[in-house]
Amino acid sequence: MLVKSVLKGDHRALAKAISAFENEEPVAAKIAKEIFPYTGKAFVIGVTGPPGAGKSTLVDKMIKHYRSNKKSVGVLAIDPSSIFTGGALLGDRLRMASHNLDPDVFIRSMASRGGVGGLAKATRNAIRLLDASGKDIIIVETIGAGQSEVEIVKVADATVVVTIPQLGDQVQTFKAGLMEIGDIFVVNMADLPGADKMVTYLLGGVVAKNGWAPPVLRTVAKSGEGVDVLIEKLEKRREFLAKKDIAEKRQLEQTRAEISSLVAEKISKVFLKELSSSKDLERLIELVNKKKIDPQTASEELFAKLSKKR
Amino acid sequence: MLVKSVLKGDHRALAKAISAFENEEPVAAKIAKEIFPYTGKAFVIGVTGPPGAGKSTLVDKMIKHYRSNKKSVGVLAIDPSSIFTGGALLGDRLRMASHNLDPDVFIRSMASRGGVGGLAKATRNAIRLLDASGKDIIIVETIGAGQSEVEIVKVADATVVVTIPQLGDQVQTFKAGLMEIGDIFVVNMADLPGADKMVTYLLGGVVAKNGWAPPVLRTVAKSGEGVDVLIEKLEKRREFLAKKDIAEKRQLEQTRAEISSLVAEKISKVFLKELSSSKDLERLIELVNKKKIDPQTASEELFAKLSKKR
Repeated sequence: MLVKSVLKGDHRALAKAISAFENEEPVAAKIAKEIFPYTGKAFVIGVTGPPGAGKSTLVDKMIKHYRSNKKSVGVLAIDPSSIFTGGALLGDRLRMASHNLDPDVFIRSMASRGGVGGLAKATRNAIRLLDASGKDIIIVETIGAGQSEVEIVKVADATVVVTIPQLGDQVQTFKAGLMEIGDIFVVNMADLPGADKMVTYLLGGVVAKNGWAPPVLRTVAKSGEGVDVLIEKLEKRREFLAKKDIAEKRQLEQTRAEISSLVAEKISKVFLKELSSSKDLERLIELVNKKKIDPQTASEELFAKLSKKR
Repeated sequence: MLVKSVLKGDHRALAKAISAFENEEPVAAKIAKEIFPYTGKAFVIGVTGPPGAGKSTLVDKMIKHYRSNKKSVGVLAIDPSSIFTGGALLGDRLRMASHNLDPDVFIRSMASRGGVGGLAKATRNAIRLLDASGKDIIIVETIGAGQSEVEIVKVADATVVVTIPQLGDQVQTFKAGLMEIGDIFVVNMADLPGADKMVTYLLGGVVAKNGWAPPVLRTVAKSGEGVDVLIEKLEKRREFLAKKDIAEKRQLEQTRAEISSLVAEKISKVFLKELSSSKDLERLIELVNKKKIDPQTASEELFAKLSKKR
């Protein structure tokens, strides 16, 4: 019933199904199986960048663009399972509230109680739900912190890294990983001083990946300046990915990664259950607490025992 | 050699050893084993809270207090493996720079390339290094976002949750987990309007854990107001944890958690290696890509095969 409504594009059903994944409800696995055959049509855009870079305003303008082209849009705003929730997400929602009455725009903040792995998995499934429900474009907005974001980036067809002009030497504090995850780089608030410097910095760092050279763009999300070019580049990216050999290779890698991570999750669960009832564990805990051996050695011994037993 | 220097309290050796853990160098495991017998003396304080709550200023004042009591201090500022580094950490370092020339204060920012699990593990070992090097007090500062922080909190003897007065209804946006991780709650910038409201809110939410009732304090870190009371409460917490039955139970739980997580890590690695060379994986990837089965079902089948084989 729920899945049928999702497939029809019903937003209330969508919201309910996403919650099932967030809360890891038993029904979630069933939903995932049922919707899977209907997925693979949407174009998934990841938008990531530090807090305050104007991501939500940019996403808002992107939605407007896509809507004017009659495309339906789904947006997932990822809250990186912080135990503190600032005003940011509230603000985000407000900024995008103008689309609330549009039946072809679905916006949802996502969080997870289940830690990082849980959020990445829930997001992957939420993307599939939006895809199966018929959304043409799916935008996943993250603040670019931590492992969950890196996982999400893997699923996106195009990852847009949003930065802002910075003064002084702070530009150099970008980490190595940044240049690797971006398919398109945007210097937002490009009307501020320092924009040229940032563009130059990014141009110096971008690396072509499998034949795709990431462009560096300027936007002023507030006024909408440059958003048309961003949409154009995203279209170019889509065409690039549609090439047969590239599409096949990507699908292969993504499926391999997903299955592996699901198997790893299952393995951990089963093994840790075995572990918790192991007498060896109790014995080793005691030895560690008496400082007779260290935790690393204890874990190696335990692993060897568990492996032999199976 | 390196470990010997660490045990003597040499800061350069400390820095080098911590880097070994951050970068997961092969020598790290050896260091961990060698220092383990020398650990267990320091008092470990976790300081967590949202960005802008004044944590670094508070930590700075705490260091001053401890130094005036002739205690040596180690500080680890955790950067939650964000791919974006703002100015925050730089600022933190500057704020604490006044202690740079003090041979009994060691301050270090920590990051990790190895994802969340890697950072938690590196931090745990960095704490042990500081402990073995003779630091009396170890302060671990985190921004309270994500899984790595939750892991770190588990290791701390006292977790101080720093909040600030807020206006409107934002107080209610604290997540459920917040009240559970704090051993001491601090409303910093308590001279701002809204402080009373925040104190009331926190008092309404704190839960006694194993006989410890978390106090709610007010501080003005900038002027140092209230920091003496915070130090007092931390001393109370230390006395509380020193009670024999409580200390034993805690040690048991912590060691169990650590060994379990090390075993789980090892298991994942070994299994995933087996998996990567499995012919079944290739076959299942193809089925998934043809949408004949879904990833979850594929992973279950694969897990069953791998389990049987062992």
